[in-house]
Amino acid sequence: MGVNVTDSDKTQEEEQQDLPKVVLFRPPPAFSLIGEESFASNKFHFLKTYDSQLPLDQFLSTHSHSIKAILSSGGAPVNADILQLLPEVGVVVTTSAGLNQIDIPECRRRGIKIANSGNVYSADVADLAVGLLIDVLRKVSAGDRYVRQGLWAAKGNYPLGSKLSGKRAGIVGLGNIGYEVAKRLEAFGCFVSYNSRKKKPYVSYPFYHDVCELAANCDALIICCGLSDETRHMINKQVLSALGKEGVIVNIGRGAIIDEKEMVRCLMQGEIAGAGLDVFENEPNVPQEFFAMDNVVLSPHRAVFTPESLKDLSQLVVGNLEAFLSNKPLLTEYVDSE
Amino acid sequence: MGVNVTDSDKTQEEEQQDLPKVVLFRPPPAFSLIGEESFASNKFHFLKTYDSQLPLDQFLSTHSHSIKAILSSGGAPVNADILQLLPEVGVVVTTSAGLNQIDIPECRRRGIKIANSGNVYSADVADLAVGLLIDVLRKVSAGDRYVRQGLWAAKGNYPLGSKLSGKRAGIVGLGNIGYEVAKRLEAFGCFVSYNSRKKKPYVSYPFYHDVCELAANCDALIICCGLSDETRHMINKQVLSALGKEGVIVNIGRGAIIDEKEMVRCLMQGEIAGAGLDVFENEPNVPQEFFAMDNVVLSPHRAVFTPESLKDLSQLVVGNLEAFLSNKPLLTEYVDSE
Repeated sequence: MGVNVTDSDKTQEEEQQDLPKVVLFRPPPAFSLIGEESFASNKFHFLKTYDSQLPLDQFLSTHSHSIKAILSSGGAPVNADILQLLPEVGVVVTTSAGLNQIDIPECRRRGIKIANSGNVYSADVADLAVGLLIDVLRKVSAGDRYVRQGLWAAKGNYPLGSKLSGKRAGIVGLGNIGYEVAKRLEAFGCFVSYNSRKKKPYVSYPFYHDVCELAANCDALIICCGLSDETRHMINKQVLSALGKEGVIVNIGRGAIIDEKEMVRCLMQGEIAGAGLDVFENEPNVPQEFFAMDNVVLSPHRAVFTPESLKDLSQLVVGNLEAFLSNKPLLTEYVDSE
Repeated sequence: MGVNVTDSDKTQEEEQQDLPKVVLFRPPPAFSLIGEESFASNKFHFLKTYDSQLPLDQFLSTHSHSIKAILSSGGAPVNADILQLLPEVGVVVTTSAGLNQIDIPECRRRGIKIANSGNVYSADVADLAVGLLIDVLRKVSAGDRYVRQGLWAAKGNYPLGSKLSGKRAGIVGLGNIGYEVAKRLEAFGCFVSYNSRKKKPYVSYPFYHDVCELAANCDALIICCGLSDETRHMINKQVLSALGKEGVIVNIGRGAIIDEKEMVRCLMQGEIAGAGLDVFENEPNVPQEFFAMDNVVLSPHRAVFTPESLKDLSQLVVGNLEAFLSNKPLLTEYVDSE
């Protein structure tokens, strides 16, 4: 049996070899933003498919018995084809706020748990949603452009914006994020109502089962839901018409929840008043028509990212993976409700 | 005594001749923004010095006995020289949020009351203050520029902003506006403290008698006070140093409360992190150095103006003038505290 190798005699690399593996299909944005070391643990080791020369299926087959978990971020699908190559996987932990890259029914079928990013991003996303709403109504970015171009001194006062206090705000998707948006807007004297798959039992805001009816009864529609087959292009021509020419829309969900072409048309023809958008259908490509519009605010999908939140995220990701690997309850298990 | 002329026989012009006169030295911005007719009343008549060819002193002397009130807006001083020509004036009603154009001690000496704009602007100003703060921290306007220039697709992700929730917000001047700002920021999970001439008895936020000490103990300094001899350049080099290189400043008060040259220097040298400014020392002229900075948001003094608030303002102005002329208490009498 040769020399009895104790843990302390092993090299760091050998130790890592023994650890359970967590597979990554692409580097999560947070790795480059705050450093991969924030996500390190002595309870697991990351396997990166993108560091290997092997074709994906061959790489996964080679390691299939040591891969216990997936660390998923936006863009790289976690679908049935992938999952069937990884029979030992018991959890998908995601660094993204949305879960639309994950085949949730397939995970359910295989008994694979999902841990989402919980409340980590909610405050940041809600802050930006409110910032975009104030910006669209009060013309902050447009006013900034006006001043920077020297037009204030040259051409006089900039046109008035419109008041936030007293506006009727319709939240589409009253999850963690939607709720944080609502809480903030109440402090501004807005009247909040919402649409969701189901009426929330403990919420006193008026509920609209039909998003079109919500749009007809609010001045600002704020999209806070996730992207799914049901929500794709949910904000269509009919909803935008119901919102009307005084209405504005804010989207911090996913671009494809809105029929973007239709929204561009509505904005160009004055059928809605304005839009504050952190997300787009085909990022980082943004419809060129927006670039000349003063009634839209364009944000490069930064709602979820601040260094402070990414630090919280890293702790949550490590905590979820370590909990799973030691058979403890996940910190933020995703259960199938909005 | 000849024909007995009844009210109904008089022409409109004759009737106006009989009405008490309210003098204006320049058109308030609200006249052009929502229309002068919103400020009309059958209890008084406006006399506009700017419609007359006469020199100001001659014009005022001519009408001195019929002028009972002054409608004042920013820019046109109401000083001792003016007031001594108008012995019948008993009230100055202002359309501006600030009172810095009015010689308040001289009014006091002459027993002239002052009616300010009360709470009319507070919500709008507070909304914009929060909007500017979110914008500076989360780089909203700068991100919008980045997207509009096509740089998102060409150069990749935009740098991270910084989190609002959990920040320590220092309010300078906890009047109506400052209080509305504080209320909103609490909903974002900020920790509010304040500086004011005196500690407010019914407020639980930590109070700093010294603005420098407040700056040293907050991440964001929000200037909500009025401009006076005491507050001019109150935010000087020392206060900006105390705020420090992670700190940001928002000014929705008056430009001259900050030593603007010093702030420009601090921003250029990274001694403070950013600024959101609705007001400037020499409006509409803005220091050119700002135009190239991505860590400042420049707003063309629009904090107080939305059509909704201007409508409220017109009712308040008319209400104050009518109250004074019928010996009733003013709706929003200015009493000398912040």
